[in-house]
Amino acid sequence: MSIETLKEEVLAANLDLVTKNLVISTWGNVSGYDGETGVMVIKASGVPYDKMTKEHMVTVDLDGNVIDSPYSPSTDTWTHIELYRAWKDKGIRGIVHTHSLNATMWAQLGQDIPVYGTTHCDYFNGDIPCTRLMTGEEIGTDYERNTGKVILERMEALDPVRMNAVLVRSHGPFVWGTSPSAAVLNSQVLDYVANMAYMNYTMTGGQCGRVQKELLETHQNRKFGPGAYYGQKNH
Amino acid sequence: MSIETLKEEVLAANLDLVTKNLVISTWGNVSGYDGETGVMVIKASGVPYDKMTKEHMVTVDLDGNVIDSPYSPSTDTWTHIELYRAWKDKGIRGIVHTHSLNATMWAQLGQDIPVYGTTHCDYFNGDIPCTRLMTGEEIGTDYERNTGKVILERMEALDPVRMNAVLVRSHGPFVWGTSPSAAVLNSQVLDYVANMAYMNYTMTGGQCGRVQKELLETHQNRKFGPGAYYGQKNH
Amino acid sequence: MSIETLKEEVLAANLDLVTKNLVISTWGNVSGYDGETGVMVIKASGVPYDKMTKEHMVTVDLDGNVIDSPYSPSTDTWTHIELYRAWKDKGIRGIVHTHSLNATMWAQLGQDIPVYGTTHCDYFNGDIPCTRLMTGEEIGTDYERNTGKVILERMEALDPVRMNAVLVRSHGPFVWGTSPSAAVLNSQVLDYVANMAYMNYTMTGGQCGRVQKELLETHQNRKFGPGAYYGQKNH
Amino acid sequence: MSIETLKEEVLAANLDLVTKNLVISTWGNVSGYDGETGVMVIKASGVPYDKMTKEHMVTVDLDGNVIDSPYSPSTDTWTHIELYRAWKDKGIRGIVHTHSLNATMWAQLGQDIPVYGTTHCDYFNGDIPCTRLMTGEEIGTDYERNTGKVILERMEALDPVRMNAVLVRSHGPFVWGTSPSAAVLNSQVLDYVANMAYMNYTMTGGQCGRVQKELLETHQNRKFGPGAYYGQKNH
Repeated sequence: MSIETLKEEVLAANLDLVTKNLVISTWGNVSGYDGETGVMVIKASGVPYDKMTKEHMVTVDLDGNVIDSPYSPSTDTWTHIELYRAWKDKGIRGIVHTHSLNATMWAQLGQDIPVYGTTHCDYFNGDIPCTRLMTGEEIGTDYERNTGKVILERMEALDPVRMNAVLVRSHGPFVWGTSPSAAVLNSQVLDYVANMAYMNYTMTGGQCGRVQKELLETHQNRKFGPGAYYGQKNH
Repeated sequence: MSIETLKEEVLAANLDLVTKNLVISTWGNVSGYDGETGVMVIKASGVPYDKMTKEHMVTVDLDGNVIDSPYSPSTDTWTHIELYRAWKDKGIRGIVHTHSLNATMWAQLGQDIPVYGTTHCDYFNGDIPCTRLMTGEEIGTDYERNTGKVILERMEALDPVRMNAVLVRSHGPFVWGTSPSAAVLNSQVLDYVANMAYMNYTMTGGQCGRVQKELLETHQNRKFGPGAYYGQKNH
Repeated sequence: MSIETLKEEVLAANLDLVTKNLVISTWGNVSGYDGETGVMVIKASGVPYDKMTKEHMVTVDLDGNVIDSPYSPSTDTWTHIELYRAWKDKGIRGIVHTHSLNATMWAQLGQDIPVYGTTHCDYFNGDIPCTRLMTGEEIGTDYERNTGKVILERMEALDPVRMNAVLVRSHGPFVWGTSPSAAVLNSQVLDYVANMAYMNYTMTGGQCGRVQKELLETHQNRKFGPGAYYGQKNH
Repeated sequence: MSIETLKEEVLAANLDLVTKNLVISTWGNVSGYDGETGVMVIKASGVPYDKMTKEHMVTVDLDGNVIDSPYSPSTDTWTHIELYRAWKDKGIRGIVHTHSLNATMWAQLGQDIPVYGTTHCDYFNGDIPCTRLMTGEEIGTDYERNTGKVILERMEALDPVRMNAVLVRSHGPFVWGTSPSAAVLNSQVLDYVANMAYMNYTMTGGQCGRVQKELLETHQNRKFGPGAYYGQKNH
């Protein structure tokens, strides 16, 4: 895939954040990673969505060098870089950051989102993890890069292929996938399950039971396992 | 009605799930049953709604054989089959499955939705039932067919003509009606009453009183009873 | 105003219920009363909004006789008649019934909506009243007419010019005003304040304090009092 | 900037309140202040948004004299005047008043909105302040002007450049910024963080912890501090 094509995909994915009600104003950003050339494309910083064009898609290498643009890339660029560095060999090709309402609210609470039902199981293999509090030092210097590091620390025992989202504590979600558009869909589903989980939480004082282990496994496997049978085989 | 006409109805009903905000992405499915030929038409698996055409409507007989399509039918096909087998002689001609937000959230809670008001009474003759937990065995083999069986088990003492919906525990609603479009409307009303019931539940710690028996009867009868007087007689 | 003009106003007001998200399907109804001829115009029963035309507006006199239409009027016609009979000399010219989400949810709870802020004060002079439970007898015979009677009973000590809404217990709101469109606006505001009141209620376990008496008076008077100064004098 | 240009900006900002779901009916108002001539432009009172044109934008000086219009300015004009008088030398050029759902609900509660996350930090430097109860006297005479005075009293120890919003107790938010459109964006963000704060509050019984001081500082500084690096330098 050419960088031009990747820019079009990343632009479309950014605009889709608006369509799916996951961002307002200039919030949020989507990036895409090109496995062949080892660079990523990410939204420029502070551009409103209704003025956004392909020109605002900035190519950056994984050392943080801007390759081809007069624009500054998203302030969150270093968080994206940390994640691609860690996971590019696992097929992660798109990353999304939003302040979508329900997921961000859980990040503010500082708790993992419990896996209460099969909608959650169809996309995420268990509770959605929330990172630890960052130290004053981590916040004071290289804040965005350290944000990436605490995400990786939290994900250490988890498989990023089966767990495509994390809540950065007090901040909001970072979500990824096999393409920019897949990461946007995962962001939308995350906010949807976060909304339902809020309701279950308030009905039960936080005591709603998690889904059965067998349901989680069956729903994960029929979409992602070796004998997956969801969707079309030949289309 | 020809199968072609039924396919058009089922397509329209599937697309209406999007219009009514009951599904996102490729979620949900609507089927319709043809009483003359004894086959059903159902959405193909994993097709996004914005690309969906009549071509993606798959005809399946009640033994699960695909009649006329290169597409795989919805993974939930066997759940639909179980319900049509049991209820085709009672006039059930459309079935809908969604993960609509409020109804799914109640399914995750694992409780029947209490009948708190007349909006509920106008469509559903009492609490909306929730199925029991499935066993590991039921989940591990023939999961979708067993989902149909636990629905029928839960509905055993209930009349599917007056109770058009069930919550599959930890999963989401299955809803039916006298046509695909009637089942979609019932799905929309289910989510609406589930939303109100959530609010009543959180205001009262789950202690909101049910509607009077007399109100339930009067509202059911003025729409469905022998002396029904809701709507137009001659139009 | 001619009956034809009134029909156009009532049609527009009915359609506005959809625009303002106060109804779905065939729910709800708006009527308008003509002071000169002493008849009212009301929506036909069970007509979906996307098919509704002026033809579905039915003229009915205050004895319940249909004047000029092949359609059956709304099942709630007798509730409207009771209210016009009582209040036509006070300038009430439009009545709306909906199952709008938040107001209906309060009706299901069976409590008055407390006056928590000035948004509420700008339209309603105090708590929104909720009717008592109806008896089995009142429900069993002349249900819709008795619904009107319990509304009037609940409004006995209240001024329908300053209190334009009531919650029919377990059912939903009836709202009125000086015209069909004014009654629709009052219905929209009712649902809005009902939504905020729900949130205040759940934050405080029902212990949120009411607005100061002085604020209620000032906000009522600057819109409705003798020295009113809200809006334009000469436009 | 000419007054004509300012009127266009203020009109666009008023209409944007509808687009952003911050007002219904004739609610809310936006004003803009012209630093050169020392006058402000504000919406006329009681004009519905779907009929609003530049003609309804009224020029008023800071003594409350209408300069150029047959229309009465917003009833809240004196509140706006009080704030411009106090803050015009700090660069405040736009003020917005709405009854947006979530912010108004917090005003009804009568509590500051706690700073629970970085979305809040990106716009507001700490808890959003709520004013004290007004006395009967303050409500009875010069109500709108006294509303301005209690806002200024509450803001006394706060910097209006870094804290762009206040909740008027029992009433709703007043929000400002460096332009009319900036004030509208701040109003939208206020309602967004008020919504999330409601959810965090109900999940924790009001015990959700505030964001770390270091996060608040870093997020404020990367947007507003001397070394700000959010957005584009040269575009």
